[in-house]
Amino acid sequence: MSIQTIDQQDQSAAEALTEQEIFESHLGGKLSVTSTVPLTNKRDLSIAYTPGVAEVSRAIAANPELAKTHTWAQRLVVVVSDGTAVLGLGNIGASASLPVMEGKSALFKTFGELDSIPLVINTTDVDEIIETLVRLRPSFGAVNLEDISAPRCFELEERLIEALDCPVMHDDQHGTAVVVLAALTNAAKVTGRDLAGLKVVVSGAGAAGIAVAEILLAAGIPDVVLLDSRGVINGAREDLAADASSKKADIAGRSNPRGIAGGPAEALAGADVFVGVSSSKLAEEHLALMNQDAIVFALSNPDPEVLPEVAARYAAVVATGRSDFPNQINNVLAFPGIFRGALDAGARRITPAMTIAAARAIAELAEADLSADYIVPSPLDPRVAPAVTAAVAAAVTE
Amino acid sequence: MSIQTIDQQDQSAAEALTEQEIFESHLGGKLSVTSTVPLTNKRDLSIAYTPGVAEVSRAIAANPELAKTHTWAQRLVVVVSDGTAVLGLGNIGASASLPVMEGKSALFKTFGELDSIPLVINTTDVDEIIETLVRLRPSFGAVNLEDISAPRCFELEERLIEALDCPVMHDDQHGTAVVVLAALTNAAKVTGRDLAGLKVVVSGAGAAGIAVAEILLAAGIPDVVLLDSRGVINGAREDLAADASSKKADIAGRSNPRGIAGGPAEALAGADVFVGVSSSKLAEEHLALMNQDAIVFALSNPDPEVLPEVAARYAAVVATGRSDFPNQINNVLAFPGIFRGALDAGARRITPAMTIAAARAIAELAEADLSADYIVPSPLDPRVAPAVTAAVAAAVTE
Repeated sequence: MSIQTIDQQDQSAAEALTEQEIFESHLGGKLSVTSTVPLTNKRDLSIAYTPGVAEVSRAIAANPELAKTHTWAQRLVVVVSDGTAVLGLGNIGASASLPVMEGKSALFKTFGELDSIPLVINTTDVDEIIETLVRLRPSFGAVNLEDISAPRCFELEERLIEALDCPVMHDDQHGTAVVVLAALTNAAKVTGRDLAGLKVVVSGAGAAGIAVAEILLAAGIPDVVLLDSRGVINGAREDLAADASSKKADIAGRSNPRGIAGGPAEALAGADVFVGVSSSKLAEEHLALMNQDAIVFALSNPDPEVLPEVAARYAAVVATGRSDFPNQINNVLAFPGIFRGALDAGARRITPAMTIAAARAIAELAEADLSADYIVPSPLDPRVAPAVTAAVAAAVTE
Repeated sequence: MSIQTIDQQDQSAAEALTEQEIFESHLGGKLSVTSTVPLTNKRDLSIAYTPGVAEVSRAIAANPELAKTHTWAQRLVVVVSDGTAVLGLGNIGASASLPVMEGKSALFKTFGELDSIPLVINTTDVDEIIETLVRLRPSFGAVNLEDISAPRCFELEERLIEALDCPVMHDDQHGTAVVVLAALTNAAKVTGRDLAGLKVVVSGAGAAGIAVAEILLAAGIPDVVLLDSRGVINGAREDLAADASSKKADIAGRSNPRGIAGGPAEALAGADVFVGVSSSKLAEEHLALMNQDAIVFALSNPDPEVLPEVAARYAAVVATGRSDFPNQINNVLAFPGIFRGALDAGARRITPAMTIAAARAIAELAEADLSADYIVPSPLDPRVAPAVTAAVAAAVTE
């Protein structure tokens, strides 16, 4: 039985969730810390605590490298958020973001076999978030930034990578980018296209949109056009010229090679691929302008940019972020294996080579059963995290 | 079979620990984070993560009180250290202190059924430690400060209590104080003395010494004399007059009611009780000056201020911090139940009334089997944490 078949049999997601079951499930939180050593007699206490533990602390003081093997820190991912861009809810604050971060930590353990704790921070000041994590550096082994608003998220991630000697990744950017590249690789195969020749429109130029554009460019797809609320992003736009150091201005100079100007109509005319990562709707009249056998990824949650049944009138492959349609593009395919691979290999950074390797590994797992309704493995496919881990670890060079 | 008998049969502690077994036990650290919710099908994912979790986050944003019931934070104790006063090792730094903090978190779970994570902080600046914890406030429910050097620990604890609206306790101070008061209560009974009439000498005026003196004064024992490396602490000492705002100067004005001056000889002449919480040795000639049927708590670890066999020549009751002698005075009797009781009752602070209640609860558990060799329950006695929890929760008034 193929994974796809298992997936189609998983009817669990189809029944509507009730408020009651959601709130009951979250009662008391979703994480538990346990001891991995026995504490049942005095000898146990003497080994795990005083006096035995003093030997281990003394050894680490003499040789700091031992902290990597004799504490839990090296395998611990902190899930860090300031609560400024939580799911579709926006800036709801650190405390209200905690259930999401607990869920993320639970996913790290379930899929990546990594310990993880949420750290939600009551400040939105980039300097203060960096300072806080630098002070806590000996407590953890990697940082998963989560649900932090753009454009602050770009500066925060870049500066944290410099400030901390450990893997740091903003999942809303790069986790999304990895699964989009994986899905697009297989969608191109299904529609008989060459990946490098695709004409791609990315709707949304926030955290996810910029990162998707970056990974597509890095993977060798030059014709990427970004759309934001003001229209097509190009080097001639005055608002970008006025903010020349911004990520948008930077990507404007490296994308849109045909120099398109205008709005969705101009961008989508003759395009092969639409990737939606904003809440802007995709009008059917614009969809109709795309090339035949188009590829549409409408990833906005919970409401896709266009409903799959409408998209299917024009597109050969349709994907969403939802579990109740085929082709669910979900970050959980990527982040557990990316962090696990980086930590297994002792990586100092998560590089584009590592994220592209992760995307290829995800795409390859779906290859044997490829169809228009199966371009990525299920988020629950147990082969995914080990394959991503191995591919990422093999791509580590620093 | 009494607890005492179980304890005496626990020969596990008597065999010498080997370096190999200690280091093997600590390999990979001593804590694990697990999910308390299932994540085995798409419906599970939809409840614990998107889209279900958004309902919970939205509810907390609308009513912040729900964070107490629908996240893990309210039951989470962070064990915080800057690594400046770790066990007998001194200032070994944050990273090297982590194995101790992991052990402490493991004890919180094992004995108090509370989740706990270590946060070791790479700064010794009190302002910066406070600022860090204030920023992380939505991530946790209580703070156990650990192994932070005096006198910084006093200022840090006092200011954190003001800055955070949750229980904060420096265990090296108050955990120690609670078990000393519990043990002393029963030692007085064993030797037929009235607690309030005891003449007590506390050797050491650091974190533990000051806190022991404070709890004894608060519990109604006025005749407490502190000794530090310069001798008896009294209001006339020039070094204390020069630092009038210090904890030592403060306690100098409230202790030593007979106005003793001098050194250990002057302090111990006619004393009933010696409590050692420094590494200073107790000379046999000074021990000989104490009253008949003296009480000696030689709590320095791993080397007591005086060996129990020497102390026994003069004292009717002898206790140490070690598991291989009778009467082990160990903080694990106190801190799990103190934090659990405070959190169960929704306490804003841990007050002297709560710590005194904890000491009484511990003392009462040993009462039925009281003897010179059994003045406190075993650290492994499963009755202890629930009894302390109940007593502390009942003493909560704010």
